[in-house]
Amino acid sequence: MSSTQRRTVFFISDGTGITAEALGHSLLAQFPDCRFRQVRAPFVDNIDKAQACVRQIRDAATHDGFRPIVVSTLVNSAIVATLRQADAQFLDLFEQFIGPLEAELGTKSTHTAGRFHGIAESEDYKARIEAINFTLAHDDGQSNEKLDESNVILVGVSRSGKTPTSLYLAMQFGVKAANYPLIPEDFERNKLPPDLIRYRTKLYGLTITPERLSQIRQERRPNSKYAAIENCLYEIDAAQRLMRREGIPFIESTSRSIEEISAKILQEIRIPHIGY
Amino acid sequence: MSSTQRRTVFFISDGTGITAEALGHSLLAQFPDCRFRQVRAPFVDNIDKAQACVRQIRDAATHDGFRPIVVSTLVNSAIVATLRQADAQFLDLFEQFIGPLEAELGTKSTHTAGRFHGIAESEDYKARIEAINFTLAHDDGQSNEKLDESNVILVGVSRSGKTPTSLYLAMQFGVKAANYPLIPEDFERNKLPPDLIRYRTKLYGLTITPERLSQIRQERRPNSKYAAIENCLYEIDAAQRLMRREGIPFIESTSRSIEEISAKILQEIRIPHIGY
Repeated sequence: MSSTQRRTVFFISDGTGITAEALGHSLLAQFPDCRFRQVRAPFVDNIDKAQACVRQIRDAATHDGFRPIVVSTLVNSAIVATLRQADAQFLDLFEQFIGPLEAELGTKSTHTAGRFHGIAESEDYKARIEAINFTLAHDDGQSNEKLDESNVILVGVSRSGKTPTSLYLAMQFGVKAANYPLIPEDFERNKLPPDLIRYRTKLYGLTITPERLSQIRQERRPNSKYAAIENCLYEIDAAQRLMRREGIPFIESTSRSIEEISAKILQEIRIPHIGY
Repeated sequence: MSSTQRRTVFFISDGTGITAEALGHSLLAQFPDCRFRQVRAPFVDNIDKAQACVRQIRDAATHDGFRPIVVSTLVNSAIVATLRQADAQFLDLFEQFIGPLEAELGTKSTHTAGRFHGIAESEDYKARIEAINFTLAHDDGQSNEKLDESNVILVGVSRSGKTPTSLYLAMQFGVKAANYPLIPEDFERNKLPPDLIRYRTKLYGLTITPERLSQIRQERRPNSKYAAIENCLYEIDAAQRLMRREGIPFIESTSRSIEEISAKILQEIRIPHIGY
């Protein structure tokens, strides 16, 4: 397929489609030279909706001049059979894996639609929502109340990536992630913020290159001392020295996504309640 | 397999493992009567780490009395071959799907490890981080500045689920989701908050049952008028009438997860820049 041509990819699910989409993105990322148009079709949970998808797939094929790719998570075999009326390449998660799993486990699957359906009542889900609320209340050192309940407290200079990482940890993994800034006063004293000292074992640091930090801060406060490269150099150097001396592990956030940073942090902290 | 026995499931990836885990959770959810112990093994990107996994798999098999299940996303064939030395049921995303995709697309995959590696520099990723910052700055009606840049503005009574849903939309889909509370003053005037009137087409409502709302508010402010069932009944009735009259679509959040609510909202709003 030439790089100027475009293929349509459908993410079809009887639930939210979030798993199908994650799966699809991982697969498509292996073909960086191809161009894809992505169409999300969640909640395809009856034959009518499946037939509407079939029409969309046919239209896309006519438009593109290629048969589309369908990445799906569908448990209902009548819906699958309906979709198969379209000419497409089907990559279905359940079709591939449920059979082998049933054989391995020696039991039938429930064939229940929708990964997230009913999840809102589960303990895991409630823990995630509670973690999000905790993380929001403990963003940027705004509260010391119940800090002992945190699973991890991210520390680092202003704009090193603490807030989005904390929120990702809470939302994806149910981790109560507080975050606390390291500020010039801490560097002058060359000590941790006093409120954090007793939580030293929960601390995890984020650092960033001075160049990237300066760039991010410039967007916020152009031409400020805060954003100046000399100041960024000073703050990062001081923060890293402080973290090394206090034995706080830290990770470079510059070229890492919040997914990568969170997965690395999760490898190193102990989170009793989530059972890994 | 009897329901009292437990099988270990490994999520193994050369990247964050988030896709393998999402995939695994979807599959395991089809077997609600089985008990699983879940072990996450991200960043398995060399033979040494693969060998360490093999030992963990063997230990789990000995402990459980069953061979473990391995759900993986691995692109390096030497790492896959090493893991295969363990006796387990292997469900590998790439093994199943990359071959057929290569044939369909008429091109070889890059076999590059780590879905999220390098993603931090991508435009999509930057848009997600920007959306998270936007959403945080526009939580709970705290700012009207640049509200015109929002993709959606969630409205609803206090504690109807606006904040976690907004954050999920931002984090997962890069949607700039503001949220704005509907408060008793709005119901007395029986009008939308004045600042929202010109953004009516961006509004999307969340509602909740009075019983659940009262329960959530009780946890926050026990025995308050705010949490009383009569007050919750009044606020929800007034909010729904207001939304109906203004033609604002709304969704019941009570028994839905933020994933479900977000996927439903995404089906109904237009988001130009994310290309769906």
